[in-house]
Amino acid sequence: MFDELILDKMNEECGVFGVYNHPGTPQFIYYGLHALQHRGQESAGIVTSNRQSFTFHRGMGLVTEVFQTKELEQLRGTMGIGHVRYSTTGASSLQNAQPLVFNYHDGQLAIATNGNLVNATQIRRQLERQGSIFQTTSDTEVIAHLIARSMYDNIEDAVKEALGMIKGAYALLIMTNDKLIAALDPNGLRPLVLGKIEEGYVLSSETCSFDAIGAEYIRDIDPGEMLIFDREGMTSKRFTLQTRKAICSFEYIYFARPDSDINGINVHLARKRLGKRLAEEHPVEADVVTGVPDSSISAAIGYAEATGIPYELGLIKNRYVGRTFIQPSQELRDKGVKMKLSAVRKVVENKRVVMIDDSIVRGTTSGRIVRMLREAGAKEVHVRISSPPVKNPCFYGIDTSSREELIAATKNVEEVRQYIGADSLAFLSIEGMLDAIGRERLDSSHGYCLACFNSEYPTEVYDGLLIGQNREMIQVGEE
Amino acid sequence: MFDELILDKMNEECGVFGVYNHPGTPQFIYYGLHALQHRGQESAGIVTSNRQSFTFHRGMGLVTEVFQTKELEQLRGTMGIGHVRYSTTGASSLQNAQPLVFNYHDGQLAIATNGNLVNATQIRRQLERQGSIFQTTSDTEVIAHLIARSMYDNIEDAVKEALGMIKGAYALLIMTNDKLIAALDPNGLRPLVLGKIEEGYVLSSETCSFDAIGAEYIRDIDPGEMLIFDREGMTSKRFTLQTRKAICSFEYIYFARPDSDINGINVHLARKRLGKRLAEEHPVEADVVTGVPDSSISAAIGYAEATGIPYELGLIKNRYVGRTFIQPSQELRDKGVKMKLSAVRKVVENKRVVMIDDSIVRGTTSGRIVRMLREAGAKEVHVRISSPPVKNPCFYGIDTSSREELIAATKNVEEVRQYIGADSLAFLSIEGMLDAIGRERLDSSHGYCLACFNSEYPTEVYDGLLIGQNREMIQVGEE
Amino acid sequence: MFDELILDKMNEECGVFGVYNHPGTPQFIYYGLHALQHRGQESAGIVTSNRQSFTFHRGMGLVTEVFQTKELEQLRGTMGIGHVRYSTTGASSLQNAQPLVFNYHDGQLAIATNGNLVNATQIRRQLERQGSIFQTTSDTEVIAHLIARSMYDNIEDAVKEALGMIKGAYALLIMTNDKLIAALDPNGLRPLVLGKIEEGYVLSSETCSFDAIGAEYIRDIDPGEMLIFDREGMTSKRFTLQTRKAICSFEYIYFARPDSDINGINVHLARKRLGKRLAEEHPVEADVVTGVPDSSISAAIGYAEATGIPYELGLIKNRYVGRTFIQPSQELRDKGVKMKLSAVRKVVENKRVVMIDDSIVRGTTSGRIVRMLREAGAKEVHVRISSPPVKNPCFYGIDTSSREELIAATKNVEEVRQYIGADSLAFLSIEGMLDAIGRERLDSSHGYCLACFNSEYPTEVYDGLLIGQNREMIQVGEE
Amino acid sequence: MFDELILDKMNEECGVFGVYNHPGTPQFIYYGLHALQHRGQESAGIVTSNRQSFTFHRGMGLVTEVFQTKELEQLRGTMGIGHVRYSTTGASSLQNAQPLVFNYHDGQLAIATNGNLVNATQIRRQLERQGSIFQTTSDTEVIAHLIARSMYDNIEDAVKEALGMIKGAYALLIMTNDKLIAALDPNGLRPLVLGKIEEGYVLSSETCSFDAIGAEYIRDIDPGEMLIFDREGMTSKRFTLQTRKAICSFEYIYFARPDSDINGINVHLARKRLGKRLAEEHPVEADVVTGVPDSSISAAIGYAEATGIPYELGLIKNRYVGRTFIQPSQELRDKGVKMKLSAVRKVVENKRVVMIDDSIVRGTTSGRIVRMLREAGAKEVHVRISSPPVKNPCFYGIDTSSREELIAATKNVEEVRQYIGADSLAFLSIEGMLDAIGRERLDSSHGYCLACFNSEYPTEVYDGLLIGQNREMIQVGEE
Repeated sequence: MFDELILDKMNEECGVFGVYNHPGTPQFIYYGLHALQHRGQESAGIVTSNRQSFTFHRGMGLVTEVFQTKELEQLRGTMGIGHVRYSTTGASSLQNAQPLVFNYHDGQLAIATNGNLVNATQIRRQLERQGSIFQTTSDTEVIAHLIARSMYDNIEDAVKEALGMIKGAYALLIMTNDKLIAALDPNGLRPLVLGKIEEGYVLSSETCSFDAIGAEYIRDIDPGEMLIFDREGMTSKRFTLQTRKAICSFEYIYFARPDSDINGINVHLARKRLGKRLAEEHPVEADVVTGVPDSSISAAIGYAEATGIPYELGLIKNRYVGRTFIQPSQELRDKGVKMKLSAVRKVVENKRVVMIDDSIVRGTTSGRIVRMLREAGAKEVHVRISSPPVKNPCFYGIDTSSREELIAATKNVEEVRQYIGADSLAFLSIEGMLDAIGRERLDSSHGYCLACFNSEYPTEVYDGLLIGQNREMIQVGEE
Repeated sequence: MFDELILDKMNEECGVFGVYNHPGTPQFIYYGLHALQHRGQESAGIVTSNRQSFTFHRGMGLVTEVFQTKELEQLRGTMGIGHVRYSTTGASSLQNAQPLVFNYHDGQLAIATNGNLVNATQIRRQLERQGSIFQTTSDTEVIAHLIARSMYDNIEDAVKEALGMIKGAYALLIMTNDKLIAALDPNGLRPLVLGKIEEGYVLSSETCSFDAIGAEYIRDIDPGEMLIFDREGMTSKRFTLQTRKAICSFEYIYFARPDSDINGINVHLARKRLGKRLAEEHPVEADVVTGVPDSSISAAIGYAEATGIPYELGLIKNRYVGRTFIQPSQELRDKGVKMKLSAVRKVVENKRVVMIDDSIVRGTTSGRIVRMLREAGAKEVHVRISSPPVKNPCFYGIDTSSREELIAATKNVEEVRQYIGADSLAFLSIEGMLDAIGRERLDSSHGYCLACFNSEYPTEVYDGLLIGQNREMIQVGEE
Repeated sequence: MFDELILDKMNEECGVFGVYNHPGTPQFIYYGLHALQHRGQESAGIVTSNRQSFTFHRGMGLVTEVFQTKELEQLRGTMGIGHVRYSTTGASSLQNAQPLVFNYHDGQLAIATNGNLVNATQIRRQLERQGSIFQTTSDTEVIAHLIARSMYDNIEDAVKEALGMIKGAYALLIMTNDKLIAALDPNGLRPLVLGKIEEGYVLSSETCSFDAIGAEYIRDIDPGEMLIFDREGMTSKRFTLQTRKAICSFEYIYFARPDSDINGINVHLARKRLGKRLAEEHPVEADVVTGVPDSSISAAIGYAEATGIPYELGLIKNRYVGRTFIQPSQELRDKGVKMKLSAVRKVVENKRVVMIDDSIVRGTTSGRIVRMLREAGAKEVHVRISSPPVKNPCFYGIDTSSREELIAATKNVEEVRQYIGADSLAFLSIEGMLDAIGRERLDSSHGYCLACFNSEYPTEVYDGLLIGQNREMIQVGEE
Repeated sequence: MFDELILDKMNEECGVFGVYNHPGTPQFIYYGLHALQHRGQESAGIVTSNRQSFTFHRGMGLVTEVFQTKELEQLRGTMGIGHVRYSTTGASSLQNAQPLVFNYHDGQLAIATNGNLVNATQIRRQLERQGSIFQTTSDTEVIAHLIARSMYDNIEDAVKEALGMIKGAYALLIMTNDKLIAALDPNGLRPLVLGKIEEGYVLSSETCSFDAIGAEYIRDIDPGEMLIFDREGMTSKRFTLQTRKAICSFEYIYFARPDSDINGINVHLARKRLGKRLAEEHPVEADVVTGVPDSSISAAIGYAEATGIPYELGLIKNRYVGRTFIQPSQELRDKGVKMKLSAVRKVVENKRVVMIDDSIVRGTTSGRIVRMLREAGAKEVHVRISSPPVKNPCFYGIDTSSREELIAATKNVEEVRQYIGADSLAFLSIEGMLDAIGRERLDSSHGYCLACFNSEYPTEVYDGLLIGQNREMIQVGEE
C-alpha cells in the first residue's frame, strides 16, 4: 500500500458494485467502482453478461488504470458485477483480483465479495481433501466451490446452501447469465445497499456510488437477506432467520466516504457528532483544532464547533501520492523528508493544538504527526481520538495488525500518550461513540460490531488460530 | 487536463525547484517537485550536474510517474534543477517539457522557468530572422537563445543581458556545470523562495516544498534580483533597478498550497481571512456553509467562523481522478453521472446553503455545482466568491480563457447569478481582498498584480495581439 | 498471431522446459524457454520452488517481454518449470497462460503441458457434474483436477492415476515442493527430451534449448514413461505398457527448430533429405530453387543439391514483424503492400523458379507467394511441397483449420495447382517422407503419426464432435 | 544494442524514407521504414504535412513499437518523411531521434539524414560561437542551423548553400509545408533511391522498401544531386559538379537487405559472387560450408556452389532476440549459455567445416563462433571472409570501433587466425571484391569507397581528431 497514513490504519478489504438490467451496465460499474475506490486500490475488475456469455477484465491498480477506453468498450451486456480490492496480506497479486469467473456444471458464474469468512480455512481444507484445487488465496474461491458442489440444480438454492456453510462477514454479488444475486451475512457486518436507475437495479457497498451515477437509493440490504434479480424482477429471500445486526462501527469511524449513508445515517454527520461528543467527554484549553486529513476532518469540525476553538488546516496532505511514489530512505526521513503530510507552521506556531484523529492502531503515525506539529512550532499538542481504543484484532476483513501490534492492547492511555509524545491524550468512550453514531436505532435488529473495542465478536471465530497457515505462492512482476 | 473543476479555473503554468551543493540533490528535487505537483501535472523533468556534465530525464505525467527508481538513481550530481509543467495550450507534448538542456559555445546549459513572457513572440520572430531554429513552443527556448547569443563570455553577464531583453513574468532557474542562477522578473509576478539545507541551498516556487524535504526557509527572492550560486557561495545582484512588486494575487486565492507562505503570508490563513471579509461584506441568512474542495475550504471555514453558521462537508471530491479517467459522455452526464464532485444529501437537504468558491471564470462549473446542491435537496443556494470578478485575461502564464469566455467580462453580477442559478451571488471587493491578504505590506516595493480584476497590467503587453499565431507542430502519441 | 505466413500453417501449441536441482534454475528456464520461443509466442510463464514454496510469473507476449530483469531476479529456487504458449483458439488470454499453479490437499502444485487431450471435454463435464469449477479453458486444468481428486496420497500415484484417465497427446511437467515429474503420452505424440547440466537435470520440448544453456542431451523420453526427480535422484517408471510410438511427423516437417534432434534425428538434415527425396519424386526443369523462409530453407537446399539447380534467396522475410505490427488494410494489400515476405526481382526475373514449401494447409498463402514471384518477373513457378497433402484435422494440439478449410481435403492436386496459380505442383509421398525422415527406425516401438495425411489416428477421438462447444468467457484488454 | 553478433560488426546509422503527393503517406512511410528496420533499431520517427502544418511522432524502439494504431492514425497529410536510427554512440536517446522538426523564419522544417559529416564538429563550434544552441548531438541539427541561417529566402537555395558547407556522407530528406527535397553527398557514399507509386513519389535508402509498398523503382539518386518535389512536380538539380562516386562497399557486403538493388546490382547476387570469388581465391578441402546468419548466408551459398562442398545450416540464429532480452552473465556464458547463435551438432560433428563470415571487425565474435563449432564436434574450422581485412575506421556514419579495436589493423592474417582459433583463415582480396560486386561499372562516375580497407578516404577528414570531444548530456530512463 502506498500510503504511510493508511499503513497505520485499519483497512477495508473491498468494494462491490452490481447492475441488473440496464444498457449502461459497463459504464455504471466503472463509475460506481470509481466512487468506491477508497475501499481498495490494489486491483479492480468488471464482469458483464449479455445473457449469453461473460466478458470480463481484471487488473492491478486503480479503476482508472485498469480500465482504459478500449477495455471498457469491449465489455458487453446489460448486467454485471465489479470489485475493487485492498490487499490485507502480502499476497498482492493479479491472481486474487475479483470478480472471480469460472465455468461449472450449470454454466458460467462470477462472484465478487467484500468481507472475510471465519471458517474459510476449515472449509478449504475439507474441500481440498475432497479433491478441490485452489488457484487463489481468497475466500471467494471457497464460496465458488461450495456453490459448484451443491446438489441443487438451480443457482438460488445452491447459493443458499453455500451461505448456510460459511460464517463470517460478507457482502456478496453473484452472477450467472440469467440472474444476479446479492447476499449479506447474518450479522450484516459489511454494508450493502440497493438502488434503482431507470428500469435497472444497482447494488453497492456504499451510497456515494449511487450519487456518482445518478441512481436512487432504495434501502440497505438486511442481514441474512438474499436478493435475486432475474426476468421476473427482484425477489427478496431470507437464507437464515438467525440474524443479529452488527455492522462494523469502523465504517462510520473511518472506512466509508463522508457522503455515504449507512443504515440511513450520513457518515460525515456521524463523524461530526463523534467529534462533538469527544469534545464533551474530553475538553481541553487550546488555540486551534486540526484534523488528520482526510478521515478525521469531520470529527475535527465537530470538536471545534462544540468547543468554540477555531478549526484550522494545520495538517496538509499531498494529493499526488500514487502507487509509484518512491519512498524516502530512513536516512532521508530522519532528515525531515516527508512522505505525504505537512504541518502548517503559521497555523500551529506558538499555539496549543488539538489534533483530532479517528483512531490509533499501532501508534507510530500518531507519534510522527505529533512530532511534526512540534517541529512546526506547536506549543502543546493534545491528541483526541474520535473512537475508543482498539484492543482486539478483526476477523471480518479488516486489516488490523495482530494483537501485539495494537498499541492499546498492551498499553494504557497514559503509556500511549508517552509513546506518541502528546501533552494529553483521550479516546472517545464506547457509550459516547454509540450515542454519537445513533444509539436510538440500537435495537435487536440493529446494532454495531464492537469486537475490536470490547472483544464481543458477533460470530464464532473458527479460523483465528489458523490464520497465516495458508500455503502462499508468490506471484512476482505483476502486469 | 483531467479535472472538470480545474477546467473552469485559472491555471498556473509551472513549478520550479533547484538545489545547489548537496549530495542529495536528485532526491531533494524529486520530493521538492512532488510537493509542487499542484502547480503542474502535465510533465516533469530533472537535470543534475556533477560539475562535469549533465544527466537528465523528462517525461509526460506526474513526478511519480515520470521518475521511477531507475531514473532517479541514474541522476548524478550535487546541483540540479527541476520543473513541473501545466500546459496552457493544446500543445501538450514531451517536446515542451522542461528543464530545457542544450549545448552552446560555453558548454552545457539547463533552464527551467515558471511564467510567461509578453514579448516572446516578438523576440522569437527576430531570432528566427537571424537564423535561429526553434524546436519547442515554450518561452524558455527564447531565453536560451538570448543567453547563447550574448556577446558576454561569462554566464552571469549573458543571463543579465538576456533578462534585459525579455518582459513579462518569470521565475527562472539556470544551471551550467559551474553555477546555478535564480532570477525573478522586475515585478515579482511569480513566487520564488530561497532556503537552506545543511551546506546546500534550495530554490523553489513555494515554501511547502521546503517542508517536504526538511529545508529551512530563508527569504523570498526580490523582484529584479538574480542569485548566483557557485564555489564562492551565494551572491545577490540586481539585474534591473526598475522594479515594482506586483505578485499575482491568484497565488493566494487559488494556486498555492495552503501550507505555503508567500512573502511571509501563509496561504491558508490568507484564504481564511478572505472568507471572513467576504462574510462581512456579504452576509446571508443560512443553515450551513460549504466550500468547493479543495481550494475553497479555507475561505469557507473563515466565512463560517465569522458568521457562526456551521461549516459542513456539503461537497465531496473523489480523490482518485487521474489522467486516465474516462470522461462520461454528455448523455451520461445528463443522466447524473458525476465526474469528481458529489453533494452530500443529508448535509444539504432542506437547508439554506452558503457555497463558497474561490473564483468564477467561465461559470459553467459553478452552475453545475449549484444544480448538484439543489438536486441533493438544498432549499436555497447562496454563492459567495472569495475574490473579485475576473474581467481580463492574464498574459503572465495563467491559463484564463480569452476575454469572451470570462463570464464577468460580459455579464454583471445579477446576470451571472441567473446564469449559475443561485439564489444570491456576491463577490469579494478588491479592497476587501487586499485587506484580507495583507494590505499593511502594500507599499512601493510590495504590491499585488490585480490586472485580471482591474486591467492594470504591471508591464506592457506586446504579444497580446499575436497570441495564437505561433506555428504549431502537433506531436502525437506521447509516452 | 502476427504472422501472415504462420496463419496459413499448422501451428504448435506450446513448449515446456524444466530444471531440477540447480541454483541457476530461473536463468536456465528463461534461456531455455527463449530457445523454444518458436513453439509459442502468445504467453510465457515460469514457476520455481525453493522446496518450501513457489514463486511464479506469467504474462502475455514473448519470453523477453514477459520477463524483465526484475521479474527474473525475484524467482527463487533450485527447481522449476516453464511454458511458452501458442493459442489455438480465440481464447487468447492471460487466464490460460501456463504453468498453472494451485493449492490442493497435499500442498502446492504446478503443471505445464504441451499437447491436447481428446477426452478433455468429457472429463471436464464429468468433473463439473461432481462440483469442480474451471477457471481456464485449457486441458491442463483438467489434469490438475484429476490429480487433486486422486485417492492416492503421494503425488506419483496420483499423477499416474490421472494419466490413466486422460487420452491424447501430452508432454507434461509437474512440480511440487518436493518433486519434479515429467510424463509423455503413450504414443509419444509430442517431443520431450532429458538432459543434464552439472548436478542438475533438464527437461525440454526440444534439444535446441539444451544447446542454449550448455546442457548435455541424454535421451528422449519414451511413450508412456514417467520420470520422477526428487532427493533420491531420477527414477523412471511406465504408467502404461500399452504404448505405440507415433510422434507427430510435422515436428520434422515444420514445427521444430532445425538445430534440434528428435529421436536422434536432426531436424535440418531430415528436412534436407525431404527436399532431396522430393527432387527424386518430382524433378523439374528450372533455373533456380528457392525456399519459403524460414522453415522450408533446409528442404530447398536439399532439392537444389539433388537437382543441381542453383539454390537462391528468391524470397526474403522481414525479421522485425512483432505482435504490434499494424496489418495493412485489404486495400493496401491489393495495392501491393506486403506484410513480411518479398520476392527478389533480380533473382527470379525471367527465371523458371522452383518454390519449395514445407506444406500447404489452406492454400491462400501459397497462392500469394506464387503471385509475388510472378510479379517479380518469374517466367515459371513450380511449387514442390516437402510433405504429403494434409487432408485431415489434428486432434493433438496442432492448430489446423477445420477439415473444410484444408484445401487438400476437398481438392485434388491439379485443382490445388490451379487455385494457387502455379505452373506445376507436386507433393512428397508418404512413403518418401518416411524414408527421408528415417524409415529404418520405423518399428513397433518407433513410428510417426500420419493422421493428418492418412486419417489413421493413433488414439480414439472422443471429443471430436464436441469441439467448439466449450463455454467461453471472453477476457478483454490483456496486460 | 541487443545483438552480440551485431556488436562485433560495422553498423549502419540510419534509414530514411519519404513520400510526396499520396494520400497513403503515413501508411507508406510506416511500411517503408519497417522494410528499412535492419538499418537501425534504436528509434523511429515520422513527420507528415497536410501542406498547412506538421504532425509528427518519434520514439525509442522498432517502428512497430513506436507506432501503434493510434499514433499512425493521427498522422495527417499527403507528404512526409521518416527515419530509423541506429545509435553509433553511447548517446542513445529520444533527443537524438529523427526526423528533426523545428520552426525557423520561413515556417516549419523537418529533416532526416543517413550518414555522417566529417566537419560537423567544426561547423557546430562555429555556430555556437555565433550564438546557436544545440539540443541534440546529431549532425542533422547542424544542417538545420545552416539552412535557417542562410540568407536565401527560398528553401532550395538555402539547402543548396548549406550543402555547400557540409562535407561527408549523407542521404538527406528535407520537408517544408510546400516541398520535399532529397539530396545525396558528392560521393554518393550512402544509398538513396527514387520510386513512384501512383501519382506520388517515394524516396528511400533501399529498394526493398519499394517492394514492401508496391512502389516502382525509378533510379538511384546521383552524387551531388538534389531532387525538389513541389506542386510543379519533380525537378533535379546539381548542387555541386565536383562529384566522384564512392558508394560504401559495405552496403553490398553487410548492411543492405539481400533483396535490395544498389546502383542496379542486387545485393544477394553480389554477395553470392563474393562467396564464389572467395572460393576461387581461397579454396579448402572440407565437408560442409556454413554461413554465419543472416548476412553471410548468400556468400556461403556462393562458396558452396563454386566448390561443390554441400551448403548446410550449421549455425542457427534465435529469431526472438529483442531489446528486452536479458544478457546472460559472464559466468553463465562461460558455462555455455548462448545468446542467439547455436551450432548444429549433427551437421558439423566430425566434419571439416568452412565457416563463411562477411567481415571481421574486432574478432571476438568470430572466435566465439569458431569455439562453438568445435564444441559441437567440428573436426576442422576454416574461416573464409567475404571481404578484405578492415584496417581503418570509417568517418561516414559507420560504427566501426576505433582503429585500435580493429583486429586487422594491428594483426596480420596469421595472428588473427590464431586469435580466433581457426584451422585456417583467408580474406577476399580488394580486387576480388570489386570484381564480384561489379567492376565493369567502375568508372570515373561510379566507384566504391574502400577507405576502411585501403585508407583512401574520398573526402577530407576534418573532424577525425575531434571525435569524442563532444559535450555529451546523458539522458536517462527513456520511454
